[in-house]
This record gives sequence, C-alpha cells and structure tokens, in this order.
Amino acid sequence: MRVRRVRVGSLQAGTVRLVGQEAHHLARVLRLAPGDPVQAFDGSGLVADGVVAGVEEGAVNLTLEAPREGEREAPIRVTLAVALLKGDKLAGVVRQATELGVHAVQLVHARRADVPTLGAAKAKRWARIAEEAAKQSGRSSVLEVRDPVPLRDVVGTEPTWIADPRGDRFYGDVVDAWLEEGQEAVTIVTGPEGGFEPGEVTELVEQGAVAVRFGARILRAETAPIALAAALLGRVDG
Amino acid sequence: MRVRRVRVGSLQAGTVRLVGQEAHHLARVLRLAPGDPVQAFDGSGLVADGVVAGVEEGAVNLTLEAPREGEREAPIRVTLAVALLKGDKLAGVVRQATELGVHAVQLVHARRADVPTLGAAKAKRWARIAEEAAKQSGRSSVLEVRDPVPLRDVVGTEPTWIADPRGDRFYGDVVDAWLEEGQEAVTIVTGPEGGFEPGEVTELVEQGAVAVRFGARILRAETAPIALAAALLGRVDG
Repeated sequence: MRVRRVRVGSLQAGTVRLVGQEAHHLARVLRLAPGDPVQAFDGSGLVADGVVAGVEEGAVNLTLEAPREGEREAPIRVTLAVALLKGDKLAGVVRQATELGVHAVQLVHARRADVPTLGAAKAKRWARIAEEAAKQSGRSSVLEVRDPVPLRDVVGTEPTWIADPRGDRFYGDVVDAWLEEGQEAVTIVTGPEGGFEPGEVTELVEQGAVAVRFGARILRAETAPIALAAALLGRVDG
Repeated sequence: MRVRRVRVGSLQAGTVRLVGQEAHHLARVLRLAPGDPVQAFDGSGLVADGVVAGVEEGAVNLTLEAPREGEREAPIRVTLAVALLKGDKLAGVVRQATELGVHAVQLVHARRADVPTLGAAKAKRWARIAEEAAKQSGRSSVLEVRDPVPLRDVVGTEPTWIADPRGDRFYGDVVDAWLEEGQEAVTIVTGPEGGFEPGEVTELVEQGAVAVRFGARILRAETAPIALAAALLGRVDG
C-alpha cells in the first residue's frame, strides 16, 4: 500500500501525537488505521519511517523510528523514452525530468526524427546536465541518459505508454488504473517534432503498449515527456 | 459531473453503438449509466456532444448531436501566478503553459525576486509567444499574461494553492479533493529563484491559500508552474 507522508513539527523516535487539522486529515480524509505505514517529515529534509499506533477522537498517534536525511528519490521508477530531437531541446528535457524525479531517459530512433544519430559530445553534455540538475534538485541519484535504440525495443516487461493525440485511452484514466494496481515502474514513450507515424504507434500497441492522449492540445516534442512525467509523479508523494 | 470523452471511429449525429473494449471501458470501468453526458471524438479534431442512451451486455449506445470542430480548450480554468524571473525564463513558462491549456499567467512581485519591474518590451514579447504557442498547439484562445501585482493580491474568490517545499498538504491530495468537489477554477502560485520567504507563504495561507508540496525534490522556478499545471490538467480530459 502507499506510504502516506505526514508533516510533523519536530521529529523524534518514539510516539508522536498529532491533533487538529493534521489528525483530522489522516483519520477522516486519508482513513489511516492502526498498523498503516507512514513517513513523517519535518519540512527541513529529515524523515522518519513509522506506523499509525492508534486513532482516537481528534488525535492520531504514530510510532516513529529514528529520524534520518530524506532521500528525495521518487517512490516509483519512471523511464521516459524520448525520440531524438533537433538542437538542444533534449537538454531541457533532461534537466526538467531530473527535477521531477524521473529515473532514466531512454533515447529512441523514430522514423520522422530528423536527427539520425547522436554525437558523442551531446551524450556527454546531457550526462553533465543530469548531474548538475541532480545536485540542484537535491537528488541522491543521477538520471541516466541511455543511448538510442529502435522504437520497437522500448517495450519490455513493465507497462509501456505511448503518447498519441489519437490515443484511445485518456492519460489520467491510465494513471488511475496503474496506481490502483500498485505498479511501481513504467516507460512513457514520446515522439519527435512531427509526431510518430501511425504505423509506429500501431506496432508498439501490438507489442503491448497503451496509446494515451493528454488533453486536446498539441504538445511540442520537448513538452510532452515533461507533462506526462509531471502528471504521474504529481500523484505520488515523495 | 465530469463529461467523459469517448473515442468513436466515425462521428455522426444520432445513435452510435459501441462494442468491445470501448464499451467495456465505459460500462465497467467508468460505470457510465443512461443519461450520463459524453463527448465523442474521432481523433482528427471533430467532436460531438451526447448522452449515454443505454447500456447492455457488451454494448453501449450513445445519442450524439451533430459533429463540430473541437475547441481544444481545457474544461477547467487554471491561472498560474508566477513570480517575476530573471532573463528569458518566463518565455518558456508562457509557451509550455499555453500548450498545457492554462488560462492565464498572472505575474507576481515576490520579496526575493531580483527583477523589480517588468519592461514593456518583455510584456510584448510574452504576448507574442502566447499567440504563437496558441496557434502551434491548436488552441482557440490565447493565454493572457497579466501585469505584475503584489503577492497578497492573488487570493481571490477561487481556490488558491501556493507551492512550498515545506507545505502541509501533498499536491496530489489537494487536486483529488478539488476534483471531487467539482471545482472549475484555481490559482496556482509559484515563487522566484530563491523561493518565497516563509512569511510570504504564511501571509497567503492566512488569506485562505493552501500551501502544497510537490514531490521531495527542489523544482526550479520555471519548472514548478509547469509541473503543477500538468499534474492538474493531466487529470481532466480535454
């Protein structure tokens, strides 16, 4: 089950009693019950794992372990499979993806991509950007930018979603279902400037990918991966 | 209630019968019932409003009005209240916000912002970017970039959320509650490069704003508004 994060004024190991709005939120809105796991945080970077010890009228008691530095890594593993893009557009994608907590960027060859190959200088540059962005965003691990593969190779054992304005399924519904299933890993595929060719989407769907649409507007190639990552990572706290 | 969008192979006024996976999804997953409003779309820009006429074993019948051009405007009104940022960072915010379907960008004076005023040339430039981006993304209306106001003036009659890494409430939970209430408008406030001063957040919360946190990582000032907008707009289909 999802570990709920709880704001606690001052963290310490042992029993912590919450009252007022926070207690109401935990007991009535999130419906936490004794034994449910929680992670307490103090807003200054410390966290403490624990469980709900008891729920009373107007108060919730937690039992916490010793506080430690929070890791700032997302609790789910999101891989963005992104078509090669012209110019320096992927630099922005790598930077924003790092901040959002994306696990890896897998570069992809798409038919309409007008960048047939990847220069060694660019790969180095993106790795450097990922490292800088990890430091700035407080992440403990650096997003990996993986060398380009053919589109059909992105479908593996974890769920794969391909962004397509004509997709059958609305992205929000697909995310809802994925969260309800308690999934922890996903690959999200987004296309080049001119979009995927219909045949590319069909091929990936035949391999088990789900074609998802996100709103009614046309997203640029460098915005789509960030929008989809944010809409997923914004659903999990951590 | 939320109007569900339904993919239909070929749109026409009158009764349309859906079978297979789409019917299963509407009847079993989304639990639509006779009388529920829907909007059918064909994936090439046409839409048709309608209602569920009947649900049978393995089939769903819709009654549709005449197809028309889809508007590509979001069904909710999101205003991003963004602190003035250095250099050309706001250009990227305006562009991505337009693609995502944001209604307006309200510029805000924050204490730590190192851009005290807004030049007329910049305001013109952002208006031009908003217009270009509206065309590219297929939007029928142009995002409005509003002249800067003091931070305290952003709280109005609609719900207001202020992004704060120390916020009490997790963004995803606040969005859940907002959607459940059937709300249609919100203002999302994000800070300057150095973040808001704690006193600024407290002041806004005292005026009724909710302090929300988004993940455990530090988002740059130009990423935060886009991440929060995407995480909200990615929940509503359209």
